[in-house]
Amino acid sequence: MNPPGPKVVALGGGHGLYASLSALRRVTDRLTAVVTVADDGGSSGRLRRELGVLPPGDLRMALAALCGDDEWGQTWRDVVQHRFRSQGELHDHAVGNLLIVALWELLDGQAPGSTVAGLEWVGRLLGAHGRVLPMAAVPLDIVAQVRGADPSRPDAVTQVKGQVACAKTPGSVLGVSLVPADPPACPEALAAVEDADWVVFGPGSWFTSVLPHLKVPALARALTATKARRIVALNLVPQPGETDDFSPQTHLEVLQAHAPDLRVDVVVADRGVVDDPVALDKAAHMLGGRLVLADVAAPDGSPRHDPALLAQAFVQIFAD
Amino acid sequence: MNPPGPKVVALGGGHGLYASLSALRRVTDRLTAVVTVADDGGSSGRLRRELGVLPPGDLRMALAALCGDDEWGQTWRDVVQHRFRSQGELHDHAVGNLLIVALWELLDGQAPGSTVAGLEWVGRLLGAHGRVLPMAAVPLDIVAQVRGADPSRPDAVTQVKGQVACAKTPGSVLGVSLVPADPPACPEALAAVEDADWVVFGPGSWFTSVLPHLKVPALARALTATKARRIVALNLVPQPGETDDFSPQTHLEVLQAHAPDLRVDVVVADRGVVDDPVALDKAAHMLGGRLVLADVAAPDGSPRHDPALLAQAFVQIFAD
Repeated sequence: MNPPGPKVVALGGGHGLYASLSALRRVTDRLTAVVTVADDGGSSGRLRRELGVLPPGDLRMALAALCGDDEWGQTWRDVVQHRFRSQGELHDHAVGNLLIVALWELLDGQAPGSTVAGLEWVGRLLGAHGRVLPMAAVPLDIVAQVRGADPSRPDAVTQVKGQVACAKTPGSVLGVSLVPADPPACPEALAAVEDADWVVFGPGSWFTSVLPHLKVPALARALTATKARRIVALNLVPQPGETDDFSPQTHLEVLQAHAPDLRVDVVVADRGVVDDPVALDKAAHMLGGRLVLADVAAPDGSPRHDPALLAQAFVQIFAD
Repeated sequence: MNPPGPKVVALGGGHGLYASLSALRRVTDRLTAVVTVADDGGSSGRLRRELGVLPPGDLRMALAALCGDDEWGQTWRDVVQHRFRSQGELHDHAVGNLLIVALWELLDGQAPGSTVAGLEWVGRLLGAHGRVLPMAAVPLDIVAQVRGADPSRPDAVTQVKGQVACAKTPGSVLGVSLVPADPPACPEALAAVEDADWVVFGPGSWFTSVLPHLKVPALARALTATKARRIVALNLVPQPGETDDFSPQTHLEVLQAHAPDLRVDVVVADRGVVDDPVALDKAAHMLGGRLVLADVAAPDGSPRHDPALLAQAFVQIFAD
């Protein structure tokens, strides 16, 4: 038996969290994902509107990232990730979203923790190597302060509401907040953060997947107070729309603006995409941490993290 | 280890097949359900129209009847049987229907037997005690000859198309046929019938769940030719609409009319609901078999078979 590895909590949503979990599951058996629940688009948006549930899509993707490597795990991963394609009412629904919601409806009323219990059942189906928890116990909406959301008034700062609208705005996002502003956190997520050895922010859509966790007050307090060391994994390329003109150090400045008391121990970035390592190192130091440059991008040049390379970087960081 | 029990094939659909499977799974580990695929109503009807697949509902119910008794099997049974309730597009869809269709879509093209493989995967999820197969490889429509379908012309015989319409017609159903008239059978179902020790028809909606199997020509030939002994399990009460004024012996006469060459070894009926055992025994003899009267109805007086009592009746029949 290998040692179980450090206790790691990964924060995020969507493809970014999928990347960090795909790497971290190679490094530790004690992995918890804490996932954004503010999606209002696609299958998730329709489900939260039709059935009044948490948007399940980011939770489903996190579970899929953690599934077992055997035929069983791979098959059920493909099933939960499968989307119906039609001219009709099921079009674009992801099967795993429907499965998660079904378990929530089935378990509801049996226990206050039915949200977590439902995710555990899907995790058991997938043979998931880790736990997936929501960052809040209720559906959230992201509200962004945006300069130039209306192209005819490029200097005006206005509010843009909803994850889809925030991600697609032609303006520059200055910051995000949540509605409701003080949602109930997920108790199991708070406990995981408190108990962690390492907490990992990003990669992912900065304003809509990474920063929202810091706007859930109880979760932000836990992330600030935990004895865990904190890692920020930077993106490989700016997100079109959200962070079009952002340098790597701008990402860190925005992080600090959203959580002024948060200290960061390590900032990890791909060696090939950092133009100005001195400036980035300085920005990392401003947060209390150090910069680690590593080769973590996919060797084929596509703008995504390579799970094995990112895992190597985490191994080195955890060992230092 | 107990001996594995006889090889049994149960034919039917809906609640009737659920009852026979719930009994037979207590009696044998070598159980195959061959299930009607002609439903055009509810969740199944919408799925076949939207996605061009076999209607999955009767297959799902059969799988649910076979699920494991442990917490895992019971939980996933509840999930596959769960129906969404809303004002929206998911209303009334059964989760297991969506799961079966997702597996079919996912496996399609990988192998000609993807229909069977998809059902096997859901069976493995449920820990199913037996196999579930469709009676044909393509979606079917039931066409009924009905006297008095139009109440203003009570003596006119007309065609009524579709399982829902046939089940609800105010007229008297005289017989059923299928569209297409010579559908491809499921090869695994033919092999199971050929290899069986016992084949069980019913209980269930006579014209829409039990007799359609005999109108799939290849399956009817296999059912006639098999060396297996054949059991007909009669209903406890007439089906409203379909068989309103049918005596138990009328059920047997209709069966014979739909498959003149089929011999029956045993007719099993509930002792409490047979008014004229002499006439029923005579009808059983006309088919080549004998009548077994047993207490198989639920003791609470509800018009359903008790699984344990029906299982006892099967044990005795198999032993004789």
